[in-house]
Amino acid sequence: MSNIPAAAMLAIGDELLSGRTRDRNIGHLAEMLTLAGIDLKEVRIVGDEEEAIVEAVNALRSRYDYVFTSGGIGPTHDDITADAIAAAFGVGIDHDSRAMALLEASYAERGIEFTEARKRMARIPDGADLIDNPVSTAPGFRLGNVHVMAGVPSVFQAMLDKVMPTLRTGAKMLSAAIDCPLPEGAIGSALAEVQARHGGTSIGSYPRYDGVTYSTQIVIRSRDAKAIAAAQTDVRTMLAELGGKGI
Amino acid sequence: MSNIPAAAMLAIGDELLSGRTRDRNIGHLAEMLTLAGIDLKEVRIVGDEEEAIVEAVNALRSRYDYVFTSGGIGPTHDDITADAIAAAFGVGIDHDSRAMALLEASYAERGIEFTEARKRMARIPDGADLIDNPVSTAPGFRLGNVHVMAGVPSVFQAMLDKVMPTLRTGAKMLSAAIDCPLPEGAIGSALAEVQARHGGTSIGSYPRYDGVTYSTQIVIRSRDAKAIAAAQTDVRTMLAELGGKGI
Repeated sequence: MSNIPAAAMLAIGDELLSGRTRDRNIGHLAEMLTLAGIDLKEVRIVGDEEEAIVEAVNALRSRYDYVFTSGGIGPTHDDITADAIAAAFGVGIDHDSRAMALLEASYAERGIEFTEARKRMARIPDGADLIDNPVSTAPGFRLGNVHVMAGVPSVFQAMLDKVMPTLRTGAKMLSAAIDCPLPEGAIGSALAEVQARHGGTSIGSYPRYDGVTYSTQIVIRSRDAKAIAAAQTDVRTMLAELGGKGI
Repeated sequence: MSNIPAAAMLAIGDELLSGRTRDRNIGHLAEMLTLAGIDLKEVRIVGDEEEAIVEAVNALRSRYDYVFTSGGIGPTHDDITADAIAAAFGVGIDHDSRAMALLEASYAERGIEFTEARKRMARIPDGADLIDNPVSTAPGFRLGNVHVMAGVPSVFQAMLDKVMPTLRTGAKMLSAAIDCPLPEGAIGSALAEVQARHGGTSIGSYPRYDGVTYSTQIVIRSRDAKAIAAAQTDVRTMLAELGGKGI
């Protein structure tokens, strides 16, 4: 394990696999972790099936420093994430007194009945810490290195804001983007040589197409600003040379 | 294995994990497979790392009827998907004569140099069939039950259109959505009872929030239209009863 924390995400929900809902949490988490200097290494999406959730959580939590889940912690019968996490860790689960107090107060204040269904949202595995939910009260939770959060994007984002300051972060990944008017196929060989000369960086190449012309965005990534600057100079020289050839 | 084919997707690309690019292929594939009567059971996202791709492809192809990958088949050094797939299957890989002919003709017609980098796009594992690319020529391929397609959404979609007619499909999943003005917490217990009475259906509950009011969309899914109709009647009765209580 390097000194850069490695993370994984597990997005949970039949609706993501049926196409009914397009995930909006993966990209947000990816961006937040990158900004914080944590490497998101793997994402999985599974449905609302206990066996699938247990298997994925156990695979990911043993392999990465942090795991983040989204979805399946609401009040209805298809919200089974908390129970699945308890099963994955082999711990008990029950209505948590802290979560019950939070929800009871919130519903009382709003004059809404605290139904059995709503009490489901207080089911928290034994030994877990709660994750604040400033949007709609029902908390997420952290058990070991697994952070269990809501699927509704506004709630997921609010919970993640609460979680981020608790995470160990590494040197931030820096990047520089260079817009290149040539298509990938015209720069591929030269760019591979640049990459070979700059092992301390990771150079990505992303094709663009505006309906008429192919071009490329080149992105240099490294945790070392000097390494980026050196590679950047080399890429610009490469582009000037290729451009000079009229390709 | 039931008579409904089960599928998985592997989206490949550092840019998806860094947050630089938001995936747009997972939701499209999910929708297309659902329409065709194929169950998408799992999705994974990994970076441009051979070991990670090999491990994920081998895990998924042994478990599901079909695997679909996106990304990493372009002309630059960070496009390593074809080589990783060959490694996963333990087969050789080289410039494929069919792919070379397609690309050569296309570049010749457009008066563009067929560079070494562009020839990379003709690297196809031994024994694979090509997948047509009507958008930008460079083909995808199918090896065993794994379909390797481009990451650029327009190309991914065009390739998938070519692949779909070759897949075994099952009875189509049908669904009915019911807009419910009550929040999930007010219907959860009653809805769980409806679900318990309608084992042939899968009833999902999706919270909605318009900034003022919480409501719910209830989605009943089944391959049996009669089962959906029966559950739908039951849900409507449930809502009428709950509404009558003024909740």
